[in-house]
Amino acid sequence: MDFGQSERSREYLERLRSFVATEVVPVEERLRRERVAPFAARGDSSGAATWSVPDEFRELQRKARAQGLWNLFLPDSELGAGLSNVEYAPLAEEMGRSPFRSSIFNCDAPDTGNMEVLYHYGSPEQKERWLRPLLDGEIRSAFCMTEPGVASSDATNMAATAVVEGDEVVLNGSKWWSTGIGSPDCKILIFMGLTDPHAPKHQQHSMVLVPIDTPGVKVERMLSAMGFYDEPGGHGEVSFTDVRLPLDAIIAGPGRGFEIAQGRLGPGRVHHCMRLIGLAEHALELACRRGLDRVAFGKPLVNLGGNRERIADARIAINQLRLLVLNTAWLLDTQGLSGARSAVSEIKVATPRVVQQVIDFAIQIHGGAGLSDDFPLAGAWTAARALRLADGPDEVHQGLVARFELGKYNNP
Amino acid sequence: MDFGQSERSREYLERLRSFVATEVVPVEERLRRERVAPFAARGDSSGAATWSVPDEFRELQRKARAQGLWNLFLPDSELGAGLSNVEYAPLAEEMGRSPFRSSIFNCDAPDTGNMEVLYHYGSPEQKERWLRPLLDGEIRSAFCMTEPGVASSDATNMAATAVVEGDEVVLNGSKWWSTGIGSPDCKILIFMGLTDPHAPKHQQHSMVLVPIDTPGVKVERMLSAMGFYDEPGGHGEVSFTDVRLPLDAIIAGPGRGFEIAQGRLGPGRVHHCMRLIGLAEHALELACRRGLDRVAFGKPLVNLGGNRERIADARIAINQLRLLVLNTAWLLDTQGLSGARSAVSEIKVATPRVVQQVIDFAIQIHGGAGLSDDFPLAGAWTAARALRLADGPDEVHQGLVARFELGKYNNP
Ligand SMILES: Cc1cc2nc3c(=O)[nH]c(=O)nc-3n(C[C@H](O)[C@H](O)[C@H](O)COP(=O)(O)OP(=O)(O)OC[C@H]3O[C@@H](n4cnc5c(N)ncnc54)[C@H](O)[C@@H]3O)c2cc1C
Ligand SMILES: Cc1cc2nc3c(=O)[nH]c(=O)nc-3n(C[C@H](O)[C@H](O)[C@H](O)COP(=O)(O)OP(=O)(O)OC[C@H]3O[C@@H](n4cnc5c(N)ncnc54)[C@H](O)[C@@H]3O)c2cc1C
Repeated sequence: MDFGQSERSREYLERLRSFVATEVVPVEERLRRERVAPFAARGDSSGAATWSVPDEFRELQRKARAQGLWNLFLPDSELGAGLSNVEYAPLAEEMGRSPFRSSIFNCDAPDTGNMEVLYHYGSPEQKERWLRPLLDGEIRSAFCMTEPGVASSDATNMAATAVVEGDEVVLNGSKWWSTGIGSPDCKILIFMGLTDPHAPKHQQHSMVLVPIDTPGVKVERMLSAMGFYDEPGGHGEVSFTDVRLPLDAIIAGPGRGFEIAQGRLGPGRVHHCMRLIGLAEHALELACRRGLDRVAFGKPLVNLGGNRERIADARIAINQLRLLVLNTAWLLDTQGLSGARSAVSEIKVATPRVVQQVIDFAIQIHGGAGLSDDFPLAGAWTAARALRLADGPDEVHQGLVARFELGKYNNP
Repeated sequence: MDFGQSERSREYLERLRSFVATEVVPVEERLRRERVAPFAARGDSSGAATWSVPDEFRELQRKARAQGLWNLFLPDSELGAGLSNVEYAPLAEEMGRSPFRSSIFNCDAPDTGNMEVLYHYGSPEQKERWLRPLLDGEIRSAFCMTEPGVASSDATNMAATAVVEGDEVVLNGSKWWSTGIGSPDCKILIFMGLTDPHAPKHQQHSMVLVPIDTPGVKVERMLSAMGFYDEPGGHGEVSFTDVRLPLDAIIAGPGRGFEIAQGRLGPGRVHHCMRLIGLAEHALELACRRGLDRVAFGKPLVNLGGNRERIADARIAINQLRLLVLNTAWLLDTQGLSGARSAVSEIKVATPRVVQQVIDFAIQIHGGAGLSDDFPLAGAWTAARALRLADGPDEVHQGLVARFELGKYNNP
């Protein structure tokens, strides 16, 4: 056993940290506040057309790319940083400390997962047309699986259709919680729909690449999550009405949707967890600083009541959690998804729970200020809460963990 | 012991319920959605000037008043309904089920508390000028105690000043989280400030009635709580710069601020708890309905995993909580605030905790929809979370409960 960090990972982390310290930290709080507070789009949540990405932000992306701090998530060493999941973890954590740092380095969901799908399953033409500009950060993307009309925890419920008609595939149906679809840069959607209801259960659905400007695609509205629109990517409801595309828009051919989704969600979920740990670390830092600075009843807040114990409990919980996440990354690296299935679901349940709790404490010790957008805590809490649903609700992952546990006793 | 409801309380409750069913329920969800979703003011959170109260809402107030469903909170039977706290509890719960029902019946914070202050401590002139229009629902009010610059959990920290100069009192300082100040109807503020730093600790501060249009008063901005602006009342930051008022603007004379605040916060806190129980009941109802209707893995959601147990736990927790709140109301009715001090703090801690948990479950069983503004759950959760800070943070109330507990052993 060796809990040490590889040379390569350490080197990337140092460069990332120094870039963050000099280029990102001085502006990110202001950018966040400008984004949440008087955001013009709030008055018009009906469409995403007015949402924009600040030039300053694009400039940061250019600089990061120029320094080779780009596509760090991608294990391919030509197209990305070539890091293993374990090596990537500390970088993801550093990027996760604030809400939009990851996208400065082209390492944000849902694009990372969508790029992986194209990387592993895309045809050469699909890669050239969509993967290249995604890797270059020229465009962004969304993943459209969840539907308003059916309980989508059970993916086999999916009712939207992707019907093959001659040399075309025709899409119909309604999707929602399509993250990222609000960005003006979002050009490509990955749509999942029912192709053959008579095929075996997990071979009925296809994944289709849909340029967002295809006739019949309509972003109906943007959704808020606990009051936040998460601009500029946001989460949209989008309808597909007789959307016609050539057959080669289907990724890896009809009926392979579930197979691809399975692969997509493994590393994606681990990345989410790594980033959330960064968010918890940042919240704990803010909690300690505020608690040391502010005085009530003649003492710094940290020295009142049970606050020191809560600080200690947060540290203990984060440290345990990080090790579970790293262990999962290591299982993925060494045994592939099949050896990490229970572990991925374990951290998917454990992470938002712990992180939500740490952030809740940070909010509390900030007093009323903690609830406001003067601090990044309310938004951070919401990100943690949302992950108890996004990429599958807790209960479905708990079901899987329990299945593995009971499986030890020859019980499915 | 008698857990039965008085005839008078039951009669009011029946009338209230029938009014709510026929007049309020058919429109309130639409009004709520119009309020949260494309709210124009979100683009301009800097000032409250653009926030408005819909005519439809004012019409509901007129009808409620015409039917005598008005000022139900006020124990005075000429000016209000003349109900005891125990008798009022089921009405408050019914009104609390949705976010702005209470104000239809002129029973919403902070006006209720401010009216009580004027009722108990106001001079005849103050009553005529401010209490009458508040009771008539012609104007609304805000309470300005908390300050951005100091930890206001410890009220003796308050640094804003209310200095007596000849026949005037001069106010300076900054306040925030002044609830209700965003409403166009908000005409009067109750400001609490330091008058005499040399007086005994709890006789240093005064409460001053400040018409909102007095020169030197400026609403600097509106604050969001967990992403919600709570329009149209909202929560404001407000500065006071050399605000000059005649001495008779001071309530009950200089130095009596703490004495008055003490009385204000007793029934006010109990009302908050009663209303939140209504919110939890509504959330549980929504959870059950959604869970019965929606199907995943071949079963209604309620029949999956631990959902039935969570429903049962919610019922058990709400029922215990309601009894603790009713017991506190009864202590207030029979022994006054001095006999109910620990109880008030107990429910102030217990209520948002339980209610937050029940609403969190309701959100979870709604899936992604639960986080959105398509349902009132995200806003309801925020209301519960906020009450862990508003009217004093949990930890201060826990401190008081512990003091009473330890006091049994002659230990302060
Ligand atoms: C912020 C955010 C971003 C998202 N981004 C995307 C995206 O980019 N693309 C996309 O396609 N989707 C996205 N989603 C959707 C997300 O994946 C779904 O919300 C989630 O899978 C649950 O589906 P549902 O909302 O239909 O809930 P439902 O399927 O209706 O389930 C509701 C609830 O039922 C209960 N339940 C379900 N199954 C079980 C069980 N086996 N045991 C016990 N209880 C159970 C759980 O409490 C569950 O939360 C996002 C969601 C959020 C909140
Ligand atoms: C939605 C909302 C509405 C509000 N409405 C009003 C209003 O209308 N008028 C008004 O004047 N104020 C209002 N408030 C303000 C509220 O009363 C204060 O936020 C609260 O009293 C805490 O004060 P503070 O924010 O200055 O926190 P601080 O005093 O800075 O305290 C921060 C934290 O320190 C910790 N702490 C403090 N004391 C102790 C202790 N003894 N032991 C352990 N830990 C401790 C707690 O975690 C506490 O939350 C409102 C607040 C909210 C969120």
